[in-house]
Amino acid sequence: MQLKKIRKQEKQFLVEGSKSILELLQSDFIINQIITTDLFYNSHKIIINKAGCEVVLTTENMISDCSSFASNNAGIAIANCKENNALLPDKENYTLILDNINDPGNLGTIIRNADWYGINTIIASENTSELYNPKVIAASMGSFCRVNLYYTDLPSYLSKYKNYLYAAILEGQNINETTFNKTASMLLMGNESHGISTELLPYVDERVFIPRYGKAESLNVGTATAIFLDHIKNI
Amino acid sequence: MQLKKIRKQEKQFLVEGSKSILELLQSDFIINQIITTDLFYNSHKIIINKAGCEVVLTTENMISDCSSFASNNAGIAIANCKENNALLPDKENYTLILDNINDPGNLGTIIRNADWYGINTIIASENTSELYNPKVIAASMGSFCRVNLYYTDLPSYLSKYKNYLYAAILEGQNINETTFNKTASMLLMGNESHGISTELLPYVDERVFIPRYGKAESLNVGTATAIFLDHIKNI
Repeated sequence: MQLKKIRKQEKQFLVEGSKSILELLQSDFIINQIITTDLFYNSHKIIINKAGCEVVLTTENMISDCSSFASNNAGIAIANCKENNALLPDKENYTLILDNINDPGNLGTIIRNADWYGINTIIASENTSELYNPKVIAASMGSFCRVNLYYTDLPSYLSKYKNYLYAAILEGQNINETTFNKTASMLLMGNESHGISTELLPYVDERVFIPRYGKAESLNVGTATAIFLDHIKNI
Repeated sequence: MQLKKIRKQEKQFLVEGSKSILELLQSDFIINQIITTDLFYNSHKIIINKAGCEVVLTTENMISDCSSFASNNAGIAIANCKENNALLPDKENYTLILDNINDPGNLGTIIRNADWYGINTIIASENTSELYNPKVIAASMGSFCRVNLYYTDLPSYLSKYKNYLYAAILEGQNINETTFNKTASMLLMGNESHGISTELLPYVDERVFIPRYGKAESLNVGTATAIFLDHIKNI
């Protein structure tokens, strides 16, 4: 189930490590199986039994050996993937639009950052990394349980449902000189190497950049998303 | 050389992938060997020859097989580690103080963020991840060439050299209500799980937090560092 092909076929995915499993147990995901230690099971018996899933008890070493994490000795859960249900833009809040976010660690970090800043709705291009990749689940630190993500064709989506759209683009206006709307807007983040696809540019209302003081070529897209959300929410 | 033991013994480290090797070639690191393809060599012949190192030409497949990256088909360079030379705090700028940053990806991201915001000096606790770990080098995206890092005992260092010290601590004042000094100050970031060591707290002048709007338990320490530097530099 560490392979996309198998996840697609089985419609199930892996959740690894204590923090993520505890978040999963409190979510509305259907859990089929938890492979864990006596220690973890006994510490969280009530919530695990409430999930009504099969529990397989084993050793820490066995879990470490089977896990894709270096340091997981708590457990592995197998849960059902959700359908890719259509999402409308959030009327009360910002909606995050992701164009071809390639790296699963970056997608996970973006989901975690969205959750920190209270963003619940992400619309992602079909070539964005897959939500159920174990690296996305791991990097999201449990936030995949709270943030909704819908994969779709972005030009069609934006032509139907666009709100006021800010885009992170180097040739834009300084984020410190930008007054962001408070509600019902969108923030578009582009690919790690290629930025925002040219076909999406006609939908953009404001191009905004984060000023640089040193010499790094760029910021990581997860970091840049957090800085945008910090400006949107705080300033 | 992917193992710390071997790096310590040989005092050499690996730099992998096109972007990082090109940054290395423009830095003052001494390069001993570059293993690369005809294509990469021919595209960057002048700068590679100027480095005066041994060049081994091979195939993309061979590089992919030897690299710790999934997607490296450009090359691998072997360079000399620098000595852990003592650094004084930056008098003109902020100095970043890192307490037990455990994850190499996080340390690399912090170095990249420091470089973006023009911070050149990092003082790290001795238990912080090792600079020459291939994951640190990779995540720094070449910024390890420009940002200086000194590992030392933080309580001794701060007792001798402390400037005004801000610390990222949840029980602090809101970052939006904080007026940061413009120069000669320090920013202290703590461990991913345990935060800042209690032995460092007596040195802290101001405790500052990033407000949360949603439900994620925390922000990644690399992301939080960037948000602090963004406030320090921009607001």
